[in-house]
Amino acid sequence: MTRPFGIVIHGGAGTILKSKMTPEKEACIIETLTEALYVGFTVLQKGHGALGAVRKAVNVMENSPLFNAGRGAVFTHDGLNEQDATIMDGFTGQAGAVAGVRRIANPIDLAARVMSDSPHVLLIGEGAERFATEHGFKLVDKEYFYTDQRWEQLQAALTREKETSDRKGDLALSEDDKHGTVGAVALDKHGCLAAATSSGGMTNKRFGRVGDSACVGAGTFADKQCAVSTTGHGEFFMRGVLAYDIAARMRYGGMSLEEAAGASVRENLTDRKGTGGLIAIDKDGNIALPFNTEGMYRGYLMSAGEPVVKIFKE
Amino acid sequence: MTRPFGIVIHGGAGTILKSKMTPEKEACIIETLTEALYVGFTVLQKGHGALGAVRKAVNVMENSPLFNAGRGAVFTHDGLNEQDATIMDGFTGQAGAVAGVRRIANPIDLAARVMSDSPHVLLIGEGAERFATEHGFKLVDKEYFYTDQRWEQLQAALTREKETSDRKGDLALSEDDKHGTVGAVALDKHGCLAAATSSGGMTNKRFGRVGDSACVGAGTFADKQCAVSTTGHGEFFMRGVLAYDIAARMRYGGMSLEEAAGASVRENLTDRKGTGGLIAIDKDGNIALPFNTEGMYRGYLMSAGEPVVKIFKE
Repeated sequence: MTRPFGIVIHGGAGTILKSKMTPEKEACIIETLTEALYVGFTVLQKGHGALGAVRKAVNVMENSPLFNAGRGAVFTHDGLNEQDATIMDGFTGQAGAVAGVRRIANPIDLAARVMSDSPHVLLIGEGAERFATEHGFKLVDKEYFYTDQRWEQLQAALTREKETSDRKGDLALSEDDKHGTVGAVALDKHGCLAAATSSGGMTNKRFGRVGDSACVGAGTFADKQCAVSTTGHGEFFMRGVLAYDIAARMRYGGMSLEEAAGASVRENLTDRKGTGGLIAIDKDGNIALPFNTEGMYRGYLMSAGEPVVKIFKE
Repeated sequence: MTRPFGIVIHGGAGTILKSKMTPEKEACIIETLTEALYVGFTVLQKGHGALGAVRKAVNVMENSPLFNAGRGAVFTHDGLNEQDATIMDGFTGQAGAVAGVRRIANPIDLAARVMSDSPHVLLIGEGAERFATEHGFKLVDKEYFYTDQRWEQLQAALTREKETSDRKGDLALSEDDKHGTVGAVALDKHGCLAAATSSGGMTNKRFGRVGDSACVGAGTFADKQCAVSTTGHGEFFMRGVLAYDIAARMRYGGMSLEEAAGASVRENLTDRKGTGGLIAIDKDGNIALPFNTEGMYRGYLMSAGEPVVKIFKE
């Protein structure tokens, strides 16, 4: 009997309304998610590691303007793009992350480089970009990240902000603004797991806000038993240390992946009025894709089956 | 029977050699740790919350040049001071954190303000400082953080760096450079828990390195069952999500605080050749202060007993 292997991806969760989705846009999203799945799956099929598979799959989504990561990253209040990313190797327990980087086309590649070529886990801002240039990364101009859709989202958020006044500084975010992140988790033929998450953060964010996508344990985690990548309203994932919470429920509580992922979403998100979802895979090839939003861009391709790509609830 | 309450603090762990310690320095350290304990304990004794107690205790250590946080923060490669801090309220599950701030005298106060006055958990760099000024914080000049001892540590690290060449960019850090952070955990009369950690990071650090002290779950965690603050080689605490790992062992594995803290230090630090320690307290007033270094500046003062302050192993 051959070992199972495969990959699971997400392209963000949120108020994805069927009424706002055109057939053209839906087709584009499904096409890109399917491409990301095959790119990652091919790495696994050739016998290479899960770490490379999740990175390559995330790269496809980062390179697309459709998702809030890389090219399609949303704009901050100041009209910039500040991105966060984390990658973790479940076999070695090593991890790399970057936060608040503005000129990196593929933040997940920089996170991987932090993991492989530095003694650190997390580098931020200009310091992370200095590390990038010293390691051969090309800094892209901010025009690289310009898309009409994201710019219009910022203008809409700024207008809402003028119309409202919120003492807590909630930045007049719509539910849509809070979501969107891309990620992948994979199990390779050797039984090793990995997870990767890359995010453009929140439209109109200020003050150098960093979300769960830069925090090992919150938005991303992998060990020898499972790999998790999350998407949604990041602060809830940070407070609940959600990605690691799933691993801990399995490790210490003896739960299955599905039980652990479902319980963690319920207790850390739904019960606390937080929104989002996650993807997870375990060492036996079980997968879970729970979310409590209208939709989550998601897909999986396992060695035993056909590719599955979905947007809305079933 | 009255509920137990109390506070536990640390001022960093590392290669604290008796041979390098003068009686004068030892007396100063013990005096400041004792002051921090009493300041925090007084808050609890008056019936106020654990959150205020840990913040006030950390303030005392931040205001002293003796510890690597606030005033005594170590220098980065560029001769600056970049600090990280996190605070978490176990009762509400809320948390606030800052990373890479250069001009904040008491980073733990800014972390508390992020928690109370923003919808976010983590703010970084200049963005965090802009949030600070908008909320009435005074930015201090970099001279505030100048101490001869820290400057000499940087010069020594720069000299070592010139003499060695390390492809992994390990920055020629001595064991001493990797440690030092201050923190506090407390249980108040109402049965609520809180944790706070504040750190100047690593001498000679570059590239905007951020450690576990800015990451909820890694260096700081509190829920209704326990509160944890860590100190040591931060990257190990981040990969193992160590502070939350202790809570998870108790929550899902049914371990006692002491068992959970001991097992987590063993598996995440000692077995992986990482160094450091932590302080923890649970809802019943049990405490744990494990470390695998030569020493850890530490102390506790519980409602039932006398203050205890120690530096070396017993």
